[in-house]
Amino acid sequence: MTQIEDICEKLSKLGLSKPGVQHEQVDSVVAWEAALHSLKTSGSGSLPSSNYMLTKSLILKPKLPKGADMILVFVIAKADSSVSMPALGKNLKLKDLRFANDDILTSVFNTAKGSVSPFALSNVPSENRSNIKVILDEALLSDSTADLAFHPLNSAYTIFVSPETLKNYLNETLGAAGYAVIDLPKLAASAPQSKHSSPAIRPQEKASGEQSTETAGSTRPGLEVGKLEDFSRWYQQILTRSEMLDYYDISGCYIIRPWAYYVWQTIQEFFDAKIKSMKVKNCYFPMFVSGRALEQEKDHIEGFAPEVAWVTKAGSTDLDEPIAIRPTSETVMYPYYSKWIRSHRDLPLRLNQWCSVVRWEFKNPQPFLRTREFLWQEGHCAYIDQASADAEAREILKYYKQVYEELLAVPMIDGVKSEKEKFAGGLYTTTIEGYIPATGRGIQAATSHNLGQNFSKMFNIVVEDPSATEKVAGETPKINVWQTSWGLSTRTLGVMVMVHGDDKGLVMPPRVSEIQVIIIPTGITVKHTQEDKDKVHKACNALLDSLLKAGIRADVDLRENYTPGFKYNHWEIRGVPLRLEVGPKDLLNSSVLSVRRDTFVKQSYPLENIDKTVQQLLETIQSDMFAKATRERDAGVVMVSNWNDFVPALDNKKLCLIPWCNTSECEDEVKDRSAKSVADDVPQDEKAPSMGAKSLCIPYNQPTNPPIVPGQTKCIQCGNDAKVYGLFGRSY
Amino acid sequence: MTQIEDICEKLSKLGLSKPGVQHEQVDSVVAWEAALHSLKTSGSGSLPSSNYMLTKSLILKPKLPKGADMILVFVIAKADSSVSMPALGKNLKLKDLRFANDDILTSVFNTAKGSVSPFALSNVPSENRSNIKVILDEALLSDSTADLAFHPLNSAYTIFVSPETLKNYLNETLGAAGYAVIDLPKLAASAPQSKHSSPAIRPQEKASGEQSTETAGSTRPGLEVGKLEDFSRWYQQILTRSEMLDYYDISGCYIIRPWAYYVWQTIQEFFDAKIKSMKVKNCYFPMFVSGRALEQEKDHIEGFAPEVAWVTKAGSTDLDEPIAIRPTSETVMYPYYSKWIRSHRDLPLRLNQWCSVVRWEFKNPQPFLRTREFLWQEGHCAYIDQASADAEAREILKYYKQVYEELLAVPMIDGVKSEKEKFAGGLYTTTIEGYIPATGRGIQAATSHNLGQNFSKMFNIVVEDPSATEKVAGETPKINVWQTSWGLSTRTLGVMVMVHGDDKGLVMPPRVSEIQVIIIPTGITVKHTQEDKDKVHKACNALLDSLLKAGIRADVDLRENYTPGFKYNHWEIRGVPLRLEVGPKDLLNSSVLSVRRDTFVKQSYPLENIDKTVQQLLETIQSDMFAKATRERDAGVVMVSNWNDFVPALDNKKLCLIPWCNTSECEDEVKDRSAKSVADDVPQDEKAPSMGAKSLCIPYNQPTNPPIVPGQTKCIQCGNDAKVYGLFGRSY
Repeated sequence: MTQIEDICEKLSKLGLSKPGVQHEQVDSVVAWEAALHSLKTSGSGSLPSSNYMLTKSLILKPKLPKGADMILVFVIAKADSSVSMPALGKNLKLKDLRFANDDILTSVFNTAKGSVSPFALSNVPSENRSNIKVILDEALLSDSTADLAFHPLNSAYTIFVSPETLKNYLNETLGAAGYAVIDLPKLAASAPQSKHSSPAIRPQEKASGEQSTETAGSTRPGLEVGKLEDFSRWYQQILTRSEMLDYYDISGCYIIRPWAYYVWQTIQEFFDAKIKSMKVKNCYFPMFVSGRALEQEKDHIEGFAPEVAWVTKAGSTDLDEPIAIRPTSETVMYPYYSKWIRSHRDLPLRLNQWCSVVRWEFKNPQPFLRTREFLWQEGHCAYIDQASADAEAREILKYYKQVYEELLAVPMIDGVKSEKEKFAGGLYTTTIEGYIPATGRGIQAATSHNLGQNFSKMFNIVVEDPSATEKVAGETPKINVWQTSWGLSTRTLGVMVMVHGDDKGLVMPPRVSEIQVIIIPTGITVKHTQEDKDKVHKACNALLDSLLKAGIRADVDLRENYTPGFKYNHWEIRGVPLRLEVGPKDLLNSSVLSVRRDTFVKQSYPLENIDKTVQQLLETIQSDMFAKATRERDAGVVMVSNWNDFVPALDNKKLCLIPWCNTSECEDEVKDRSAKSVADDVPQDEKAPSMGAKSLCIPYNQPTNPPIVPGQTKCIQCGNDAKVYGLFGRSY
Repeated sequence: MTQIEDICEKLSKLGLSKPGVQHEQVDSVVAWEAALHSLKTSGSGSLPSSNYMLTKSLILKPKLPKGADMILVFVIAKADSSVSMPALGKNLKLKDLRFANDDILTSVFNTAKGSVSPFALSNVPSENRSNIKVILDEALLSDSTADLAFHPLNSAYTIFVSPETLKNYLNETLGAAGYAVIDLPKLAASAPQSKHSSPAIRPQEKASGEQSTETAGSTRPGLEVGKLEDFSRWYQQILTRSEMLDYYDISGCYIIRPWAYYVWQTIQEFFDAKIKSMKVKNCYFPMFVSGRALEQEKDHIEGFAPEVAWVTKAGSTDLDEPIAIRPTSETVMYPYYSKWIRSHRDLPLRLNQWCSVVRWEFKNPQPFLRTREFLWQEGHCAYIDQASADAEAREILKYYKQVYEELLAVPMIDGVKSEKEKFAGGLYTTTIEGYIPATGRGIQAATSHNLGQNFSKMFNIVVEDPSATEKVAGETPKINVWQTSWGLSTRTLGVMVMVHGDDKGLVMPPRVSEIQVIIIPTGITVKHTQEDKDKVHKACNALLDSLLKAGIRADVDLRENYTPGFKYNHWEIRGVPLRLEVGPKDLLNSSVLSVRRDTFVKQSYPLENIDKTVQQLLETIQSDMFAKATRERDAGVVMVSNWNDFVPALDNKKLCLIPWCNTSECEDEVKDRSAKSVADDVPQDEKAPSMGAKSLCIPYNQPTNPPIVPGQTKCIQCGNDAKVYGLFGRSY
């Protein structure tokens, strides 16, 4: 095996001065990033590099004529660069490029999975190096100040090498054979895409970018594309293959299948109980709204008008006036609030409805995140004073945060939206913001608005002032009520998938998974008798019974004609939190083998008290998932105190906390200056995963080290006095 | 007081030969009908009359100049005839007609409430009789063979008098003064209607017949119109005043307010658990469907086409193709069933969704019963064989029946729809049918369809036959799957209101009432100190606590500035099942006074173990309500073995079980021949409360006494061999 001392010696000759660091074993790029981040923030020993990119090294093999000398392709790429094997093969004039078998890692490179790095090239006898085509991702050279992070020895040890050092190393090691620098994502994007292999019924499919495509030649089990390889294709695949969702023959509309709907129903039950405890009552208003009512509040309708779907015909009859489908229900409901609220004794009026709304967005639909129809709840309350409305908006936000953190195991940052980003027509908007590590983007997870008195003025929702002591012009003075509105949608499901899913499929938090435990009979071979098999099946059923009795949502997969391996894969794609394997050997030991979906850690447990063991294990998985997601999120949010670090941090998939003047003008500037340079022929879309960074929120939990010092701390964009820390980022 | 012997003597002189009957005390027309029916069906002593109409006698008083002689109006009417006091007053040239005070009953007629009948006219000194204008409802003379039922003595005793005898009696008693025969319902219908008094916001209201109107001069507490006086206005009033529902500014759309939505959510929870136990899974399909998909099944779409709402525009952009809003989801879902079902191992596929659907009906919208958008669940399952589909359709029907009978306390008749009435495109439809005593109409309460293989052929949902032993033309033979679909909607709420509501408002079955018990402090007078009052309030709160702890949905009404009477009325309109009154005297006795909403029976109970007492009482109310509704329904369904009795029975608000040939031709004939003669200028509507009788179902529980004897029993309409008993009736 390559020894770290050898490599360090070699690198130090080439100019490497930074020491390597030990950290916890990592099994994914995201975990790697989190591990480095925690080193950075922990007191003990800071990270040798403050600006770095993670890398991946791939060893590929083409199909060759029999007897031909072996040729290998060694790809050194930025961790999140897409690599299209067909396109690369075509570029290199090599057929059927695939991942090389593990034994090649050992026999040729004297290394193993998890510790492949360019420095393994040193282990190849120099006479054989000319058979290795080395490809260097252009992205690695894009920022000469950013170190490149590698695992040369194992996945618990990272070294940092500057691009210059890497190039020097490659030149020295490869000599005349040299290496090629290629823009791998661009190559992948230009690749002809193979046809969709599953028989989709999509006769009217029109939206671009929705069609799922597969990378030919990839052999990854479950999913055919990695999360960091091509995130948007990974997202499509994970949703359809886990049977969470299916595409529909009207663009921007999707079918929410039972595996996803269960999660939504769990969220409904949780949140419905919370709001009932606040005395909010459920109701149902019509989905239709007249044009007149819709247009009553001007700012409000301006925000929605381009997306409103209009019914103009019923049967073969044209309607006298077109009727809109609600994009949200303020203007549907508030005329009736005006009617129902006659006195301060009718306050507070607290209503909620579970329904679907329609926003006919034309560009870039995205399952769960951005769909033409979506399910949500919308709460609408009216109070006599601002304090009550303030308090309620915050209380609801707290419950929203609980939905994400306690059910979906996704950490949230709560705060207030800027003036520019608040709900149109409202006073202010409180929000919880999530973070998607794989793309480095922020995502608005739910909002709760204090509408102030704006709508109550438009819709004339007034009561006599109960504290008035005398009449004015013969009338008791009137007060316009204070209102709130707040909504949580099926976007929740998309965030959960994006945060927890991995290259094998979904990873479901136990609290929202329809099946928490899947029992699979295993270890039965041709040597076993039918009686042995029956015994195992009987034991599986007995185990199922005891788990069900304990209130655990368990199931058993006794399907014939399927191998255990097939079943593992089937339930892994669906993200079932815990697998219990029961085989003849386990029965001899009165035990069962558990495999966690989140970590793949295997552990044997006695059958005695298995229900309690499993219950505890599920709780552990739930809290470990939240802890991991929190680590990754913490690693993804950086404090930036100087403009020059801002765009590099965004490009490095970070959200940034910046001292900010809190003006809309400055916000616009931030957005413009942080926009990626995009080729002119790519259509721009205001609401697409934003190219420029937006303000996500002004977090309630403001950094204190250093704090904003009035008159002293400056906005990093405009240099005027900073008022707050703003959370900025590219976003969904 | 009038003595029964006197009356009988008088009547026997006039030709009355039938004896009167004793029965249980009755407090409403419906109870009266049920009491007579139970006599008819009980072994002990049959009813003296087999064909009768119930009557009502009203004593009205006009406003007269001071000092003028008293004038009274004595109205003898069919029990369900509408009487418009303003219209009648106008007709008689009398001002401000109102109900006379109770003391006039005593002082002038020597009788009392509950025992007013025309025979009380005998008690008026003959010299005063000319001051009484007697009005006879023309409807009472419409069937000379139908006896008229009266309570001359008290409400536990009924006599039967032929129309001829009544006329003779009136002629003899009134002499020259005589009486006038008037078509009272027609007069009421022609009355100018006063303006809606509550400040509704309905700027775009267009549908006729929806506007709630009030009878001027009526003083009934809570509601201003009686259930039997003008059913459709009563229904509007009860819904809006109980705050179950409000009218919306788009015709045919209604707001389901929390008091009603709670019932729907209770139904959802109940039914959702039932179907989950059957392994049905919830999902959500888009509300939009392309024209192409919608029109794939021809018979099916024919039934819905005229009612489909079309979206043709989004923002200001015209869509390339109009997109429909689902009227039901067969054609939305089944293309995906075809995709998802690849093998017999994918069966059964059982999906359900809770959603809203849109059927843009133009005529006669009716809250809950017939609305343009309504909430429902729709289940859609696929099976490998017919037997499984048959079994499932029936199991679902059983759960639907439980929703009505066990939650809503409304009895159902289950059976199969005729070919003519089945779901378009399906194989057969199973149904549960309810009965609305006040109108004598049947109502389809929920349906569960076996779709056969029709849709699976249209949408190509096939699997390889697992039992096939050899290939045909090189292929394993394919089977089209068998499908079911089934739906239950917010129509449930309308049926519940129509069956249980009374002249004071809703009567809520305890199991679905958001508030089961309302506690009201009472008996506090000016003589009591603040301390006394505090004690009572404290006791109310303690009582509330103990009920809440026992899981009873209780609330307390401690509002200041409202009298107990106001509060009683407030909660009676809303139908809260049980009222508990707590006053200083009750506290001295450590007791509480309970008042049942369904019967108004008052009873004092010790505070000790009050939670258990109340729990039991609520169960009793629930079962009593079901028993009462069942008695009324049983009284409303008659066996008719001869055509001549059929239309009179319908006119007498009955549903009829008839021996029937079970052909569509005969069904059409029944409808035509039983249609009421309607003036030409009244618009006819196929789906309006049907004028002609339809077949409601062929009940599973077929009468056995007598049974249908093949080749012997004849269809009462066509005279051909009867195949079954069919349940026919006018319907919603």
